[in-house]
This record gives sequence, structure tokens and C-alpha cells, in this order.
Amino acid sequence: MKKYNVAVVGATGVVGTKMMQVLEEQKIPVENLYPMASARSAGKKVVFDGREWTVEALTESSFDKDIDFALFSAGGSTSLKYSPIAASKGVIVIDNSSAFRMDKDVPLVVPEVNAKAALSNKGIIANPNCSTIQAVVALKPIHDQYGIKRIVYSTYQAVSGSGSQGIRDLEGGIKGEAPAFYPKAIAYNCLPHIDVFTENGYTKEEIKMINETRKIFDDYEIAITATTVRVPVLYGHSESINVETKKPFELSDIFKLMSKAESVILMDKPEENIYPTALTAADTDPVYVGRIRRDFSVENGLNLWVVADNIRKGAATNAVQIAQVLINEGVFGR
Amino acid sequence: MKKYNVAVVGATGVVGTKMMQVLEEQKIPVENLYPMASARSAGKKVVFDGREWTVEALTESSFDKDIDFALFSAGGSTSLKYSPIAASKGVIVIDNSSAFRMDKDVPLVVPEVNAKAALSNKGIIANPNCSTIQAVVALKPIHDQYGIKRIVYSTYQAVSGSGSQGIRDLEGGIKGEAPAFYPKAIAYNCLPHIDVFTENGYTKEEIKMINETRKIFDDYEIAITATTVRVPVLYGHSESINVETKKPFELSDIFKLMSKAESVILMDKPEENIYPTALTAADTDPVYVGRIRRDFSVENGLNLWVVADNIRKGAATNAVQIAQVLINEGVFGR
Repeated sequence: MKKYNVAVVGATGVVGTKMMQVLEEQKIPVENLYPMASARSAGKKVVFDGREWTVEALTESSFDKDIDFALFSAGGSTSLKYSPIAASKGVIVIDNSSAFRMDKDVPLVVPEVNAKAALSNKGIIANPNCSTIQAVVALKPIHDQYGIKRIVYSTYQAVSGSGSQGIRDLEGGIKGEAPAFYPKAIAYNCLPHIDVFTENGYTKEEIKMINETRKIFDDYEIAITATTVRVPVLYGHSESINVETKKPFELSDIFKLMSKAESVILMDKPEENIYPTALTAADTDPVYVGRIRRDFSVENGLNLWVVADNIRKGAATNAVQIAQVLINEGVFGR
Repeated sequence: MKKYNVAVVGATGVVGTKMMQVLEEQKIPVENLYPMASARSAGKKVVFDGREWTVEALTESSFDKDIDFALFSAGGSTSLKYSPIAASKGVIVIDNSSAFRMDKDVPLVVPEVNAKAALSNKGIIANPNCSTIQAVVALKPIHDQYGIKRIVYSTYQAVSGSGSQGIRDLEGGIKGEAPAFYPKAIAYNCLPHIDVFTENGYTKEEIKMINETRKIFDDYEIAITATTVRVPVLYGHSESINVETKKPFELSDIFKLMSKAESVILMDKPEENIYPTALTAADTDPVYVGRIRRDFSVENGLNLWVVADNIRKGAATNAVQIAQVLINEGVFGR
């Protein structure tokens, strides 16, 4: 069996740590692991595959080694600077930041939706925004079957989406401490504010959901709006998704579609209080769908409640799945 | 100045306690207060207007006294049984339960929207659902000016909406205790489940928002759907409201409407991180509106973020405002 040399950039962060865990769980055959982080974290040890590996400071020469692919999760500016360097040295970068997602030369990939797009990369593949990934996994079979005309997203997003700073603000806030990262208290509160505000009043998170959904589906006709909200939850994003399809559907067929959709677990027996929540999804890989109802307020309307672990399927798991697609296609030749 | 004899039914509950506080704050001239509750709470003392009053057990003869109006907040079954008894004895009941809200002989009143409807009561006036009240206060000027065609509600509702049981489940859950009231943990979690599920998959809370919005606006053509969600917040419901209007609008005119709307505080300067949250609204009476954006996914589309204290404007304050309408109209003649 072939083995691969893998770099994880941002290896000491919440997502980077999970990326290494998922690489192990998914039994990706790793020959050498190169955990990388800022100079501040250099020298730290991480345990992977039963061995200790030393975190190295990310520099322009970090990718001079024989590396097959690099999972980046160290923020947009780090990606902007180092992903092209890595790619120029033949390393395939799977980048979890938003830096390259809307770049027309960079595929934006959710394997359940557009795995093939990963193969047309020019050295960089973008991992979508957490809240977008779980939505498109659930919506994919509906879009294929009925065509999606319009989506109204309202999200309930966990603080781990902001990394360890978000987790600290919630845990500290519960103890009565003032927030250090968020502009307002997140404990016992909901903040309709994720990423920065843009001129038209939307946050970048909202714009990401709109643009990335269209790019992943390769369908720029889908009308989409979004309101993204941070809630006092540690792990697991929930989403209230209102959809209008082009073609009419039977509700029972939507249940059937969801029950066999790839990576989806259907949890929808309200009479038995069966529906997914953030705690259902926490530290698991699937996308959970429940509260499926016809929306009687519009023709071909549908309401869904979609939940996934934002650090796993929303970040680390999806990135490792992209690597698996490349491995399966024999992209790494050595 | 006339003074009034006032009963508060459910006087030891979260809403009942707040009703007495708001009666004081709003300087409703109370001659005698009759706090009533279940036999279990009888004999307890409450302080109102600088005096101690003794809670009496609610019985069929409780309203044989000379009472002008009664504020009920003791659950649907108590209201179903005792409101008609009180009304039959000439007491005007302002009922916070859902028991009579959709009864065609019972006005459903939010004073900023349909104060006049209170005057056509036959002894019982219904106080709407918390999540509906704050929505219609914000939407009223938009509906008047442009006509609302469709609404998609997604809510972020505080545990105090379930009374002290909800508060205990969140506070206990934070300490690691299992929930006693909710079917699943609410600490660090979001439950897309408020009130009971009905056959079509919607919860009663969702159906309340749909039906009550139409009744309060007296417009049964408005198309509405809703997803209602309990979040780990103590006080203050937040709502992501997506609206389509009939007539086109200028966004700047929506800002103007909101800035002068009755009981509304406009908080919308995202560039300065000014937007309302549950903690903004907690223990205050207004309805807060922010995150006003054009929804580009549909003709005449609008997104709003609407927040209010569910125990105050969503319950106690609105009920006391209804009493004030009746007082102002000289309904209580003695």
C-alpha cells in the first residue's frame, strides 16, 4: 500500500488537531506527518499514529520536503502567503480558510456533492465554510431531483467555529467573565454576527453561505439569502433551512431521499422526540437532518433542520475526505 | 383618580411575578391586588406597592369579589376552566395562555397593532404568544406601508419561556445535571422543539406564530412559515425574520419606519457592532430591531433581526398594556 507524506498547517489549533485525529480514524496511510504552526508553537509535540511528531515553525522552506498534500487551517492570511508556495513545490494544498474559495481557478469541494471538481485543481483545493458544507450535503439530493429555486438560511452556530478563542469566551462567560474575543457576551446570548460586516449589511459569513452554495452546486441561478448567528453551543452547527424547489415534490419522497443520502442521517420522528441537535452531532462525522415539513406558505416549499459537527464535517472531516478522493484517484504518484 | 381591583392568577410564576412588577412600574392605580395561584402556593406573601398581599388558592369562588380585571398566566387548563367563571362575574380577563387565542369571540391584542380590538371583548382578551408579539410590533409599520406577502420565521427562544422549569434545566445543565423538563439537554444545545408536535410535523409554537400573526393583523392572506427553536439563553427571544412585501420599498425608508415605530428601538449600525441581542433586551420593555438588509434572493425581500424580553413585552408588559388600553377607554365603571 502506498503511503503519503502529509503536512498539517495550524496543527495546534482546534481544526488542525481534529484533522490529525480524522486522518488516523479514516486510516489514511501516512508515512511522515509534518505538523506546522506559528513560531510560537514550534517544538511542541503532537501524537499521531502512536508516535510523537514535533511541530515545526511554518516558513517559506517548509515545503521543500517531499510532501504529497498539506491540510491548511491557520487562517486566511497564512493560507494566502503559504498555499501558493506549497503548491509551487508540487504539494497539493487542501485549504480550510476562505482565502481561495471564490477563486475561479480553485475548486471548492464537498465530496458528496462535487468530488470530481477536486481533480481539476492547480495545486490548491478549497474546503468550504462549515455552515455551507452541511447545508449542501443535505440539499444535494433535493437539488438533483427537484431543482432548488431559492434558499433562506438561518443558522445556529457553535463557538468552536471561532477556534479556541470562541470556546474560551463561552466557557469564561458562563463563569461571569467578560468576552475577550467576541464583541459582546456569547454566554446566555445569541450574536447575529459571524465574521465581519460588509457594506450592504451582510456579514462575510452570510455572503460565504450564499456564494459557496452556488459554486459547489455549480448553479448560479439559485436565489439565496442568509442570516448567520453565533449561539452559546460548543460544538455543532444547526441550521433552519427554508427551500423552494422548481418541481413539485411529495413529502414522503423527501424523507426517502434523505434516508439514503450520502453522509446523511435522517432523524425525524417528532412524535418520539426524535430530531437532531448540536449535541447529537458533536464529535461525529455525519450530517443530520430532521424537522422535514412542507412549507405551506409558498409553492413547492420545504423546511429542514440540518445539524453537523462544525469541526468535523464542517472542517477536518471534509478536508480529509478531499484527500481521500485524491488518493482514490491515484493523484499522488510516487 | 380611579383605582382598580386587580387579580393576578399564577402570581408565583415567572410571568405572574413580572406582571405585578410591571403593574407597579406602569403606575396602574391598584386599589386591591388579589394574587392567586394553586393551593400549593396559597398563603405565600407577595410585596406589591409597598404592601404585603397574601396569595390565595384559585377556586370557583375566587372571582365573587369586586374585581375589575384579572391577568391570567397559569397555563391553558387553568385558563380554560377559570377565565369563563371570572368573565361571567364581570371580571375582564387578560389571558396569557393559548387557550382562547384563536377563539373568534376573543380578541387577540398587541396594543401597538390592534388596540381597538380589545374593546370588542366579551369578558376575555387573549395575550398572544411571546414570539408572535415581538414580531408583529416590528412588522406592523412595514405591513401598513407596503403590505406583507410572506414571512419566514426562524426563532432563537429563551428558556424562561418555559417558566421556572426551563430556567432550572438550563442552569442545572450548565452544572452537568440531566434535564428534568425538556426532552433533551438545553445547556450548550439548541432544540427545534417548542410546545408539542402536531400531525403535520409543525410544533404548536410554530402554528401559533403563523395563526396569531394573521389574526392580530386581521389579514389571512399573509403566507407564513416558522421554525421555532429553544436556545440556551435565559431571557430574551431573538428572531430571524425574512419578509416579502407586496409593494417595493427603499431600504432607507424601512430604517426610517423602524426608527419611529411605536415601542421599537432601532439598533442597526453594524460597522460599530450595534445590533440587538437577548442580553440587550433582557428585563426591558421595547422590541429591538437590527440587521435590516434587503434580501436579494426575491422581489421586495427583507431580512430583519428582532429581539425582545419574552417575559416582558412577550407576556407581562403586553398584558398590562392591554389593561391600560381598557383603563384609558374608561371600560371599568365604578
